[in-house]
Amino acid sequence: MALISPSRRLRRTPFSEGVEAAGVKAYTVYNHMLLPTVFRTPEEDYRHLKEAVQVWDVACERQVELRGPDAARLVQLMTPRDLRSMLPGQCRYMPVVDETGGMLNDPVVLKLADDRWWISIADSDLLLWIKALAIGYRLDVLVDEPDVSPLAVQGPKAEDLMASVFGDQVRDIRFFRYSWLDFMGRSLVIARSGYSKQGGFEIYVEGSDIGMPLWNALMEAGKSLDVHAGCPNLIERIESGLLSYGNDMTSENTPHECGLGKFCNTQTAIGCIGRDALLRVAKEGPVKQIRAISIDGDRVPSCDRHWPLRDGEKIVGRVSSAAWSPDFQTNVAIGMVRMTHWDQDTKLTVDTPEGPRPATVHEEFWN
Amino acid sequence: MALISPSRRLRRTPFSEGVEAAGVKAYTVYNHMLLPTVFRTPEEDYRHLKEAVQVWDVACERQVELRGPDAARLVQLMTPRDLRSMLPGQCRYMPVVDETGGMLNDPVVLKLADDRWWISIADSDLLLWIKALAIGYRLDVLVDEPDVSPLAVQGPKAEDLMASVFGDQVRDIRFFRYSWLDFMGRSLVIARSGYSKQGGFEIYVEGSDIGMPLWNALMEAGKSLDVHAGCPNLIERIESGLLSYGNDMTSENTPHECGLGKFCNTQTAIGCIGRDALLRVAKEGPVKQIRAISIDGDRVPSCDRHWPLRDGEKIVGRVSSAAWSPDFQTNVAIGMVRMTHWDQDTKLTVDTPEGPRPATVHEEFWN
Repeated sequence: MALISPSRRLRRTPFSEGVEAAGVKAYTVYNHMLLPTVFRTPEEDYRHLKEAVQVWDVACERQVELRGPDAARLVQLMTPRDLRSMLPGQCRYMPVVDETGGMLNDPVVLKLADDRWWISIADSDLLLWIKALAIGYRLDVLVDEPDVSPLAVQGPKAEDLMASVFGDQVRDIRFFRYSWLDFMGRSLVIARSGYSKQGGFEIYVEGSDIGMPLWNALMEAGKSLDVHAGCPNLIERIESGLLSYGNDMTSENTPHECGLGKFCNTQTAIGCIGRDALLRVAKEGPVKQIRAISIDGDRVPSCDRHWPLRDGEKIVGRVSSAAWSPDFQTNVAIGMVRMTHWDQDTKLTVDTPEGPRPATVHEEFWN
Repeated sequence: MALISPSRRLRRTPFSEGVEAAGVKAYTVYNHMLLPTVFRTPEEDYRHLKEAVQVWDVACERQVELRGPDAARLVQLMTPRDLRSMLPGQCRYMPVVDETGGMLNDPVVLKLADDRWWISIADSDLLLWIKALAIGYRLDVLVDEPDVSPLAVQGPKAEDLMASVFGDQVRDIRFFRYSWLDFMGRSLVIARSGYSKQGGFEIYVEGSDIGMPLWNALMEAGKSLDVHAGCPNLIERIESGLLSYGNDMTSENTPHECGLGKFCNTQTAIGCIGRDALLRVAKEGPVKQIRAISIDGDRVPSCDRHWPLRDGEKIVGRVSSAAWSPDFQTNVAIGMVRMTHWDQDTKLTVDTPEGPRPATVHEEFWN
């Protein structure tokens, strides 16, 4: 692996001091911000995530805040998910599409009030899209990036750790719901959510100044739980079928191709910019779709480009994320496969940079 | 320095094979794409850039293509620079602003025809901004990212190298103009431009398939000129006062604060979204502005965050980029300074992570 050159453009976070002190070994860049990727080794981080509890600097999940009478209308412009029934206190995963139905981002949206929303974004400058829509449609809404940095607490012991810092009320927070809880006299949004399937919470830290005090409080309180700094883990997220925008899907893909059709209420999502395009897709169905793929043989190299999936000489898809899974003793992968070859147990060949390997299509992910 | 984790999300370029074979040591991420930052050492790369010729993979300068009858109107919506007099064959540096006059990007725009433009962008997803404006204003224009990857040839021997591959016509291309020249039977835009002050060209490589053939042709033809793979050099760009979006300026800054007032024709740039906001700024002038800053003492650490500039205890600005200059035997830096302290030779103190240092304000950069 090459080194990453430090610069102000790759933004540090309110938790960077803690991340560095914990011995971060590698980063990626996400929303122009540093996102740790490895602390000990990917395998050690993975094992620990599944057995204990980790604190993750996911400040790179930047927020776009919408405030004003037209905020709800603007959110609905962006997405084929019908959000009319959404209440304050809820989070929802929300495909964001352009006028062709292509995915621009796959954020989680939080409704704070009828006229105040946070969009917790994946890796694209959705702020620019939203601001320009607000201007073009002459909406009465303010759009900006507030000083809010998510800190995730993930793993089977996450609830115990969170309860020791925020009190037992955290135990009552249901999945994809949030509560306002206090830390250092400040009220913070705490949601039961996160980019793993090991359970846990995301704390929306409002105000960079309390970033390190909160990091330190969690580390101190978690000593008996074997808490450690962690980060989204490539192996675990592939096992769990958690897609990564920019890796597994881009603006070339519709939500239906990404297996996100269940988050599209295209008939009733009146106002959505991509609605006309998606009505066609929803009716006819996609011709290719995201699938779990297992790849035979020993550990595959890093998947830093698309790997073609073939049936004989015919290209029928591509792999976009892959890693060796210690728990399942196979290479787990995420791919996009044409409908002719997407059925369970279809045998294919994948061309990795180190040569071809047998691969198998699965309809379900591992976790 | 930490490592950078490979993933498909950090896009490779049509020239990545060449970059790797040349022994790239470090990268940054720019427009979701790998941008090399070091080949030998920053100092060796700097010396070689000033004396010979380098080939730079700047594919991360992604293009946004605008095609259609409303293309010119859409470009003018984005910028306070009056582009009405612009002709095909010209390039222009163009501040892009939002409705508050805040900088969203500082691309170079190429006019290919009245109804076809390329915007060669800095590090923000300007495609999203432009597409949403086109939708909101119901403009008759297609907006997308074409398969075009710039390759820069920079350094005092750049013209000789380019002439040996493209013929002597390249010698006639004037600064910030371009010609269409052939390579492997394909006509490519070649501009006299680039992110250094050592002279050179940018080749807009249309079609990823000819990326490596062109890279190899330049390397082969340049052997007698001591050609080497290179990249934008931090030291040289600071000496030259070349700003970096995301480092030296963000959406918090107006073009006037960035010293880009000369690229604003705010009175006549009718249609520009930020025009009303900038008319006020143009009249009153900015209260802080970009300045060259020299920092005393030996080599400063990497500037990965704002360093406060103080007069005594009073904060009067910040440094956003800094490096040791072998040629000028001082630390060269770019900062933003309040008007009370921006005059030539003003003595200040800069707080680096390694402690305070004396600093001096300059009205001119070094190169």
